[in-house]
Amino acid sequence: MSRNNANWILTAQCPSKLGSVDVVTRFLKEQRCYINEQHSFDDKCAQRFFIRTVFEPQNETLDPVAFRDEFSLRAADFAMSFELTEPGYKVPVVIMVSKTDHCLNDLLYRHRAGKLAIDIKAVISNHPLLEPIVAWHGLPYHYFPVSAENRTEQEQQIWQVVQETGAELVVLARYMQVMSADMCKKLSGRAINIHHSLLPGFKGAKPYHQAYDKGVKLVGATAHFINEDLDEGPIISQKVEVVSHADYADDLVDKGRDIERLTLAHAVSCYAERRVFLYENRTVVFSR
Amino acid sequence: MSRNNANWILTAQCPSKLGSVDVVTRFLKEQRCYINEQHSFDDKCAQRFFIRTVFEPQNETLDPVAFRDEFSLRAADFAMSFELTEPGYKVPVVIMVSKTDHCLNDLLYRHRAGKLAIDIKAVISNHPLLEPIVAWHGLPYHYFPVSAENRTEQEQQIWQVVQETGAELVVLARYMQVMSADMCKKLSGRAINIHHSLLPGFKGAKPYHQAYDKGVKLVGATAHFINEDLDEGPIISQKVEVVSHADYADDLVDKGRDIERLTLAHAVSCYAERRVFLYENRTVVFSR
Amino acid sequence: MSRNNANWILTAQCPSKLGSVDVVTRFLKEQRCYINEQHSFDDKCAQRFFIRTVFEPQNETLDPVAFRDEFSLRAADFAMSFELTEPGYKVPVVIMVSKTDHCLNDLLYRHRAGKLAIDIKAVISNHPLLEPIVAWHGLPYHYFPVSAENRTEQEQQIWQVVQETGAELVVLARYMQVMSADMCKKLSGRAINIHHSLLPGFKGAKPYHQAYDKGVKLVGATAHFINEDLDEGPIISQKVEVVSHADYADDLVDKGRDIERLTLAHAVSCYAERRVFLYENRTVVFSR
Amino acid sequence: MSRNNANWILTAQCPSKLGSVDVVTRFLKEQRCYINEQHSFDDKCAQRFFIRTVFEPQNETLDPVAFRDEFSLRAADFAMSFELTEPGYKVPVVIMVSKTDHCLNDLLYRHRAGKLAIDIKAVISNHPLLEPIVAWHGLPYHYFPVSAENRTEQEQQIWQVVQETGAELVVLARYMQVMSADMCKKLSGRAINIHHSLLPGFKGAKPYHQAYDKGVKLVGATAHFINEDLDEGPIISQKVEVVSHADYADDLVDKGRDIERLTLAHAVSCYAERRVFLYENRTVVFSR
Repeated sequence: MSRNNANWILTAQCPSKLGSVDVVTRFLKEQRCYINEQHSFDDKCAQRFFIRTVFEPQNETLDPVAFRDEFSLRAADFAMSFELTEPGYKVPVVIMVSKTDHCLNDLLYRHRAGKLAIDIKAVISNHPLLEPIVAWHGLPYHYFPVSAENRTEQEQQIWQVVQETGAELVVLARYMQVMSADMCKKLSGRAINIHHSLLPGFKGAKPYHQAYDKGVKLVGATAHFINEDLDEGPIISQKVEVVSHADYADDLVDKGRDIERLTLAHAVSCYAERRVFLYENRTVVFSR
Repeated sequence: MSRNNANWILTAQCPSKLGSVDVVTRFLKEQRCYINEQHSFDDKCAQRFFIRTVFEPQNETLDPVAFRDEFSLRAADFAMSFELTEPGYKVPVVIMVSKTDHCLNDLLYRHRAGKLAIDIKAVISNHPLLEPIVAWHGLPYHYFPVSAENRTEQEQQIWQVVQETGAELVVLARYMQVMSADMCKKLSGRAINIHHSLLPGFKGAKPYHQAYDKGVKLVGATAHFINEDLDEGPIISQKVEVVSHADYADDLVDKGRDIERLTLAHAVSCYAERRVFLYENRTVVFSR
Repeated sequence: MSRNNANWILTAQCPSKLGSVDVVTRFLKEQRCYINEQHSFDDKCAQRFFIRTVFEPQNETLDPVAFRDEFSLRAADFAMSFELTEPGYKVPVVIMVSKTDHCLNDLLYRHRAGKLAIDIKAVISNHPLLEPIVAWHGLPYHYFPVSAENRTEQEQQIWQVVQETGAELVVLARYMQVMSADMCKKLSGRAINIHHSLLPGFKGAKPYHQAYDKGVKLVGATAHFINEDLDEGPIISQKVEVVSHADYADDLVDKGRDIERLTLAHAVSCYAERRVFLYENRTVVFSR
Repeated sequence: MSRNNANWILTAQCPSKLGSVDVVTRFLKEQRCYINEQHSFDDKCAQRFFIRTVFEPQNETLDPVAFRDEFSLRAADFAMSFELTEPGYKVPVVIMVSKTDHCLNDLLYRHRAGKLAIDIKAVISNHPLLEPIVAWHGLPYHYFPVSAENRTEQEQQIWQVVQETGAELVVLARYMQVMSADMCKKLSGRAINIHHSLLPGFKGAKPYHQAYDKGVKLVGATAHFINEDLDEGPIISQKVEVVSHADYADDLVDKGRDIERLTLAHAVSCYAERRVFLYENRTVVFSR
């Protein structure tokens, strides 16, 4: 289990208002919950407040239903939305891939090693290629081929898997199909994509080839939430790798594999540890 | 002025005890202070709690004397030590150097550009060499030569400058003299040194030459508090630089200059922004 | 003096052709020159060859005029252009600035410390602000104010300084004036600019503000040759810095200062050590 | 196949002597071999010369036996040892592991994806635990349990596998058994180990726990050749990860996994691409 999901986590956000920290910490004290780590931030531009609290009940038991009910009454005064995450919670996840497997392999490994607080419910692909490694991990693999004609049905099949598995998060681990506006809308804020460039640079297809043409000395990767505007969703994590004149476009593709999988794993782990807050077109990410 | 010293900062530490966050946040709410950013951490090994809070009074004025008096009463129940830092506060600093100027030049520049919340009161050296650049910045330069015979008197002169200037912090910016146990004790916890290796590796003299002999592929720098044990004080910041077979010992010395000054500037800026907490032989450093 | 300019350096480029290395190394052997370090690269897309050789004559003396004359005869068969740089050579440089001084201060410091193989002939500015620090270094400061009306005359003045000082390289160390197409053409390939973003992302004005609006998690800097297309010249060096949600646009500006000066210093040092080769819209940079 | 093994590679080393580059490049020209990339370095302390050349024959065929025979005659004058690597060559490798699988998984993945120029002949372990993932990759897994009594026999079994498979390189991918001096001697210079600290810091057992006790702000990993002195062999690659006060010893273990596998993969890939030269207790590593 991931370190930070060893304890209870309370996360919340609301419009900026005096007492927004106090309403959380006073309640926790009343409930005899000891705060191990807390981070709050107020975005002065957006006038919005964010808080993440990791805590342990001093009493042996804590009833999450009662906690939520009682805290709701306090939160209401602040128009505060909140989420209580229980110790050991693993985020139910559906992973989507095409034929490229470096991100998938990385997520499967971290999941298998117990280093990501996620529970992979299924892997969906528009190709049959990656079925064997998924099967070896004992996970369901859904092969939904897609064409110009059947995109709508394929997206319905995908959506059905997401709903039936109760997936809280969809991870696009190099899923190379454009999705319809409708699908993007459904997944908005609950799907993380990895793009193989430092967005907003090199949007669209073949970003490494674009990068080669420009003679850049660094390549990067961006993990971001899906929203209705392709490659424009709120950024969660970005990483870079040094490259040189001796790296042709294909070498950039190869070199980028490591940063892509590290960037995606970082974003998913931040999400699973409830470090990521989404608002407007931005994120707050409280780092470890 | 440094960003984070634009507002009031309250920092505190105490033994772990239920309510340690609440005692801070409740008081701030009562004082009608809005919390812009807060970070707390509980060291479960040391059973010790740390908190840093950046806040703005909603009322136009805040009386720091009254604030300290009233909060003291609450803090006492937690055996909590605390510090209230006023907006725009600059840490009074004495810098000590020998003949190497890259760290000094960097601190002088950041100070001049208003990017470090420090007020350089004086520069002390055992050599006259660096007087001109200090004089150009309009700062006092004390040349106190040192020999085996006069070490005690020289340290008394240093100590006198520290006391007369009211320096809260002494920065050893490549001061290449060993100090007496007595002087180390006086400066313990209030002086930051830059050592040109990744401590605890390559302690003592000529660390880059030691590193060359070992054929390392990275060199590093460590900014740490002085304590009674030379090169063993609590670490605040560490950075590294990639090196190769083609870097001889002298090249490592050259390459190290950039990381030394960046590491020292980082540590001083963290200190000045009240991000650093010292306990036992460790530090908590709440990152930006 | 910079390490690598301790010895003779021969650099050359030509269209790809069998024997392009041999023509260099055979000649050096005949001249009884020992090769300390050599790096060659053939760009298979551009069909172009690049080589950099650091060498020491075994005989005490080497006559550069005779060397150039004799090697020219061999190089001609390969349509090879080459440059012979003598030990201790310092590139004559003119620096251009406006009001922001972090890059200037960094270059002046490295120059003063003897860590850059450049000889700063003059500093040119459209503001009088930075004259004092330049004067303290004993260097000429030319204040050429610019307006919509006098741009042509100001550029003539700049060009005159460049020519009279015999500057091989012009360094735009945060010179915030757009230059005319004619001036860009004159400086094409012999001026290095620092842009405060990872080009080609965030071209144009206020790149940090653009970056803040996009919610990026990294900011960067790019040192590039000037050519006729603003912010599109061949890239020499790029570096990044991690940022977070807590960094407002002004904080990005502050955080960017360190990477800007490190990126520019890196590019200038690579140039001065003859590590940079320019062709088409690209560079080869042989790293240390 | 790895990029650089697309072409022929000639690597060589010898005592420093005038003409050491010429002897290589002249021969290649005579053989009508076009040099794509070449890097040479002369260690002025050790008085030793190293060269790596990537080339393509202009004629369709190149007979490696004849090449080696003929070049041997030239190399002899320089006491030059050399190695000719054919295009597409994959280094035969035996991997040794215990129970920790992050490095193994990473090497298996890169091998499977064709991104490392190695041919994994067998995996050897003192535990049965990791057999399934190795079997899934269709590779032999040798389980050789070890105790104080049978160490000698176990090492004989290991050595037999190394010899029977024709392994050129043994990779200790977190093999947690101390080997006998005799075994270390046999593997000296042909086995790469990953140590989970920045050597020479934190040698021996539980380096992350040592690091936690010192309160470091960075942890690192070192890939090095085995020699007769444990944890003291020549360093090939080192990488670091930033850590904080909030990372307990177990967190450092977790955080270290990514840098360990990246550092080991980097070292193995440099070895496979013939970028690593071993001499005395040092390495030359020509970077990509």
